[in-house]
Amino acid sequence: MFKVVALLTDFGIEDHYAGVVKARILRELKEPLNINFIDITHKIPPQDVRKGALSLYFSYKYFPEGTIFLVIVDPGVGTERKALVIKTEKFIFVGPDNGVFSLIYAENPEFLSFEIIENKVLKPPYSHTFHGRDLFASAVAYILSEIPFEEFLKPIPKENLKKLDFPFPEKTKKGYKLSIWYVDHFGNIITNLHKDIIKSPFRVLINKREIPLVKSYGYAKKGEFIALFGSEGLLEIAIREGSAFEILANPEIEIILES
Amino acid sequence: MFKVVALLTDFGIEDHYAGVVKARILRELKEPLNINFIDITHKIPPQDVRKGALSLYFSYKYFPEGTIFLVIVDPGVGTERKALVIKTEKFIFVGPDNGVFSLIYAENPEFLSFEIIENKVLKPPYSHTFHGRDLFASAVAYILSEIPFEEFLKPIPKENLKKLDFPFPEKTKKGYKLSIWYVDHFGNIITNLHKDIIKSPFRVLINKREIPLVKSYGYAKKGEFIALFGSEGLLEIAIREGSAFEILANPEIEIILES
Amino acid sequence: MFKVVALLTDFGIEDHYAGVVKARILRELKEPLNINFIDITHKIPPQDVRKGALSLYFSYKYFPEGTIFLVIVDPGVGTERKALVIKTEKFIFVGPDNGVFSLIYAENPEFLSFEIIENKVLKPPYSHTFHGRDLFASAVAYILSEIPFEEFLKPIPKENLKKLDFPFPEKTKKGYKLSIWYVDHFGNIITNLHKDIIKSPFRVLINKREIPLVKSYGYAKKGEFIALFGSEGLLEIAIREGSAFEILANPEIEIILES
Repeated sequence: MFKVVALLTDFGIEDHYAGVVKARILRELKEPLNINFIDITHKIPPQDVRKGALSLYFSYKYFPEGTIFLVIVDPGVGTERKALVIKTEKFIFVGPDNGVFSLIYAENPEFLSFEIIENKVLKPPYSHTFHGRDLFASAVAYILSEIPFEEFLKPIPKENLKKLDFPFPEKTKKGYKLSIWYVDHFGNIITNLHKDIIKSPFRVLINKREIPLVKSYGYAKKGEFIALFGSEGLLEIAIREGSAFEILANPEIEIILES
Repeated sequence: MFKVVALLTDFGIEDHYAGVVKARILRELKEPLNINFIDITHKIPPQDVRKGALSLYFSYKYFPEGTIFLVIVDPGVGTERKALVIKTEKFIFVGPDNGVFSLIYAENPEFLSFEIIENKVLKPPYSHTFHGRDLFASAVAYILSEIPFEEFLKPIPKENLKKLDFPFPEKTKKGYKLSIWYVDHFGNIITNLHKDIIKSPFRVLINKREIPLVKSYGYAKKGEFIALFGSEGLLEIAIREGSAFEILANPEIEIILES
Repeated sequence: MFKVVALLTDFGIEDHYAGVVKARILRELKEPLNINFIDITHKIPPQDVRKGALSLYFSYKYFPEGTIFLVIVDPGVGTERKALVIKTEKFIFVGPDNGVFSLIYAENPEFLSFEIIENKVLKPPYSHTFHGRDLFASAVAYILSEIPFEEFLKPIPKENLKKLDFPFPEKTKKGYKLSIWYVDHFGNIITNLHKDIIKSPFRVLINKREIPLVKSYGYAKKGEFIALFGSEGLLEIAIREGSAFEILANPEIEIILES
């Protein structure tokens, strides 16, 4: 018997922080259990809750049912911000109440929300600066150990949860003005335009200049900007064997509908 | 029961890509199975198929028998390049047909080669830009689930496989002129001279200046360049407590045979 | 049945080195055993034994009992430096005798120390430059396989072990002068002042200017330097949404006791 715990943090990989969180989960289990830890990433830029929310949104649905997601991008650690457990039909999410779960709420409106009761979980000596280890990791261990929720969690109303705004493309006279949601390691610029919201043929303009819309990166000529629908169905701007973001930084991106 | 899946990609660690590939493998398994994922590296420079091939060559033989290697350095994703499964006596390799398995072919001439039948593996909605997740990860899950090869693979002739050239040292009047195969994280410069191809004593020249040949890094004086046979039996150029590559960049490396 | 092996190295993540060490452990096991590998970090700066020692000290006690720590920061690889196995009440540590275990010795004075007998573990062909793979990983596999210690280890006297000095804060007329022990990925500066050695209220001066002492990062105003006791009980200097180390580099840090 084994379980999957997915981790998403801004801890970086230079220090011991991510390893210690995994260690703590294993050590707090009531019975030994082989946990398969899957790192989504530990390289969310420090305290960038928005990028954390997108990274989780882009990945969670590919995990096996029952996966527990431990998400720690937590600028408010040690203050009054709440510590959450969010339960959807297939998954459990553990992390701070700062909006990092906003897109989970939006895609799973039937979710259940709980606050971690700190004094049921924190064991002295604990730290005010490392809730990832002392509060969230222990809560994950409790869930894995099948300790009943009511022993360390209390339901909280959904309305009070912090939410970040991820706006849709802005309608213009001829089409849409897009925003940049995410820039990946290859320098691909991922916009907020999902392929399902656009039915007619269209052209893509970057800083007013049209670029070709193709099926995959492999169809670009070297040095040419292209647009394509990426792995999450969002329109991306890329360049073959280069970083579009390094060259374009924050370009103006427009869609012109034809018809 | 558990299995080992080794991963080698150019995904970097900033994004969710490597985590999602592991997630997808776990989710597509017919029966739950605890996979031990071993990351070889995700830091192959973007689309550097050659470095991917070397990294795989330097590592695969140390893995336990039965390991499945998922190798994704794939500039041609979404185009007509084939998706491969390669079977050697001890291992299985999954990845694109772009030469990344060249050194596996050379060391395991009895290998078997198969093409992944896309429409037996891709499940809509799938992406043209992320075959790592939608095609290769699923193929790995099929292999782990012991689905018979003929249900999703077809044999393809070895002659048609793409191969990269990794030339041997070039014979000169007095010895050999070496090429650089790989530069590692410590800045050690790894050449194409294997210790087995050289029987008589020899001297090493870097940009025409002789440097000492020693047994290990620990024998270098601080700031001194040294040559030594590294962990794969290849001649390396190093400097104690520094990066030889940062100082020398692409030096001329010669071997003078004494006799 | 499964076991935990924690890894702490300066291998970086660009190359295959860390993956190959894990592979070798799995391959040398007498019986298949599912090892849960937990990476503490592979980003110790090359050959920085001191940072390795601190990283281990900050993390080891959070791991489950029975964890084996494989620590490879090894500038002396291939020379006469000894290869060690250190046994404490709860853990086993494997790595070179260069001081990287200094703080383990200090916190666990009842530890047992052994030297790895090289010719019982190294199997030809082995490398003089990669003991992580050929010596230490194999020793870990022997321990996991429950091969009796006397078959590949010999006890060595504790007095002969190499130790690094980690000095306590320096007493001054009005308080203490602190040293910097560690700088983390967030740029937080971690000093050598543990909260247990200071009983009366005190003020913190950075380069002679007082900064506030707070409970957690979340209490800082943006752009303000703060002092706080961090996750290991050591006094840290931090700045909200920035890197204290980038701005201050190596500041003078003083404590003034208010009696």
